[in-house]
Amino acid sequence: MATAIAAPSTQFATPAQLKVRCRPRNSAVACRSRATDTDAECEVVLDPTYGAPAKVKLRYRLLGPVGAPIVVTQGGISANRAVCDLPDTAVAPALSQSDPPQSWWPQIVGPGLALDTRCFRVLCLDWVTPADCIPGNTDSDRGLRSRPSAITTADQADALAALLTELRIDQITAYVGASYGGMVGLAFAARYPKLVQRLVVISAAHRSHPLSTAQRSVQRRIVALAARAGSQSEGLALARELAMTTYRSVEEFGQRFGSEPLSDAAGFRFPVEDYLAAAGESFVRRCDADRFLALSESIDLHHVDPSAITAKTTLVAVASDRLVPIADMRELSQRIQSGCTFIELDSIFGHDAFLTDPEQISGAVRAALNPITDKEG
Amino acid sequence: MATAIAAPSTQFATPAQLKVRCRPRNSAVACRSRATDTDAECEVVLDPTYGAPAKVKLRYRLLGPVGAPIVVTQGGISANRAVCDLPDTAVAPALSQSDPPQSWWPQIVGPGLALDTRCFRVLCLDWVTPADCIPGNTDSDRGLRSRPSAITTADQADALAALLTELRIDQITAYVGASYGGMVGLAFAARYPKLVQRLVVISAAHRSHPLSTAQRSVQRRIVALAARAGSQSEGLALARELAMTTYRSVEEFGQRFGSEPLSDAAGFRFPVEDYLAAAGESFVRRCDADRFLALSESIDLHHVDPSAITAKTTLVAVASDRLVPIADMRELSQRIQSGCTFIELDSIFGHDAFLTDPEQISGAVRAALNPITDKEG
Repeated sequence: MATAIAAPSTQFATPAQLKVRCRPRNSAVACRSRATDTDAECEVVLDPTYGAPAKVKLRYRLLGPVGAPIVVTQGGISANRAVCDLPDTAVAPALSQSDPPQSWWPQIVGPGLALDTRCFRVLCLDWVTPADCIPGNTDSDRGLRSRPSAITTADQADALAALLTELRIDQITAYVGASYGGMVGLAFAARYPKLVQRLVVISAAHRSHPLSTAQRSVQRRIVALAARAGSQSEGLALARELAMTTYRSVEEFGQRFGSEPLSDAAGFRFPVEDYLAAAGESFVRRCDADRFLALSESIDLHHVDPSAITAKTTLVAVASDRLVPIADMRELSQRIQSGCTFIELDSIFGHDAFLTDPEQISGAVRAALNPITDKEG
Repeated sequence: MATAIAAPSTQFATPAQLKVRCRPRNSAVACRSRATDTDAECEVVLDPTYGAPAKVKLRYRLLGPVGAPIVVTQGGISANRAVCDLPDTAVAPALSQSDPPQSWWPQIVGPGLALDTRCFRVLCLDWVTPADCIPGNTDSDRGLRSRPSAITTADQADALAALLTELRIDQITAYVGASYGGMVGLAFAARYPKLVQRLVVISAAHRSHPLSTAQRSVQRRIVALAARAGSQSEGLALARELAMTTYRSVEEFGQRFGSEPLSDAAGFRFPVEDYLAAAGESFVRRCDADRFLALSESIDLHHVDPSAITAKTTLVAVASDRLVPIADMRELSQRIQSGCTFIELDSIFGHDAFLTDPEQISGAVRAALNPITDKEG
């Protein structure tokens, strides 16, 4: 459970009385609204599952018209608050403007897209890790002097709940989460059933599959081994390369890469290795080892009791997902007692379909959110 | 191409005139035969795909009656000549008797089993690696002074062909190979079509799948990274742990392991991690890093033109195999122009079904070999 302890660093209008007119399927209908798009941050106190209460700084992005239905949107462990780019008209300066985070869902979230920022007010957070927890340094911080030893999806859900309190949001219209963001969405809906009306979960289940845990365990130990060898970046890159083999489908790799090696003085090089190397190097530029270790472990610590979820739920599963077996999502759908819409996508992109198959994901997100927009239209 | 250069270190009877009477499906019918079960070794010259000709010592096991139909039987990269235990009545002392290799297919090969050693003469070899190649040290060894830079499945096939010459075997009745042994069987049948009548390939295709190559590439780089850190055993164990996640199916891991972690002073420990650790430690006792690296790379270098295969072929594929996608084996079956029997097994054990699902594998092997035993009976 988390509680807000500080005023937000930016001011927000109270929910406006504007009526949002929007039919996402008909982009000719303009939204009448005023946008207050912004990056901002605030501090809350988190009482983590593992460890003593700690202060934590939450960084978030708000996009879309004040008064529009609020949709929290979260992605995988390498996603952050930059769900899509902050428009030039943003009212508050972006945090770390000099090195803005790269947006991770620009094909799904934005004006005229499935998560239409003319019609929805979209909120997205940076994930919390133990490194984001701030040891207290004043008397009033007594008891807030240590960092948690781990961060769970329940803790991420608590951080979101604290942020909503901070933003004076009594209830969100929907939570749309993919991968780790879907896990956190399930934790949030189970812990705060009154705070969320609709839940859309893409490629995430109520627990991690043991085979996927095994693969992540090896990834974490690669990073630890490399750190002891003084090659932390190399280890992080290699762990990410291994992760990539779990994110994509066997069909996609088969279509994309040949199997004839190139041979040079250093030995053989298989076509897929260049792709892996690029993915590993890119990840090292975006993530540090401690952050990766904490969020990777958080996935494996994830456990949610589906029976606690009361939000109207849509689960979007991809048949070729090697990381989150579709059978686990089907089991989840059967255990959500409040009823659940189960959408099965036939995509070649495996677990990464939420990033690389925007057409199908858009369709699923629109289908899940249409009842809101239709009602509001 | 390899040529025999030395007399075998043990003497074998020329193929006897004994008629082998055996119906494996009816174990009441006794075989009338004389067994000369033995471990032995001999040197041949190998002209490898990558590198100059080199002498290599081949270690093999022969089991079953002289004069019986000869079946070469090879397993995965961690298998060796010990396809099943050498019986107490073996005529020649086993090599390295003090530390005999553990038999890897005792549920399939042996008296009364699918590959009945009362009815077949079974030949199995240790895999060749560059470390098994012997730099020459006499004038007559000129040109044999370097080790190959890699070993391919074609080289393993050449080594087998040289051994057959050495043993004065003009043709084998069948080659039964699983995993890497299946790849080598395909290479052997494509390179030496006149030497083999029947080919039985379990869980192997004509080339490696790029996604599996990606996983093995990460395994090899874990070993290299650990070696630089002075933790070679730890790296080899970790690489094997990663390999285990590709050998088994998602269903088996799901049934076998829970997902609730244990927590102790060192952090969290997930149930599957104990299994992985045991598998890694066991592998380090059986294999060294150089051998692993060479055979792992050999899998990825594997390429066979299926149209060169003329032996009667049976392919046994496992639907849950994550390492050798069943689609690749189906493609292979369609490209073998001499005709092919395709057996699809529905096993929970994935790629490891050849080791852990002996009942189904026995059925498939019996079906593939029955025409021989029926004819001989």
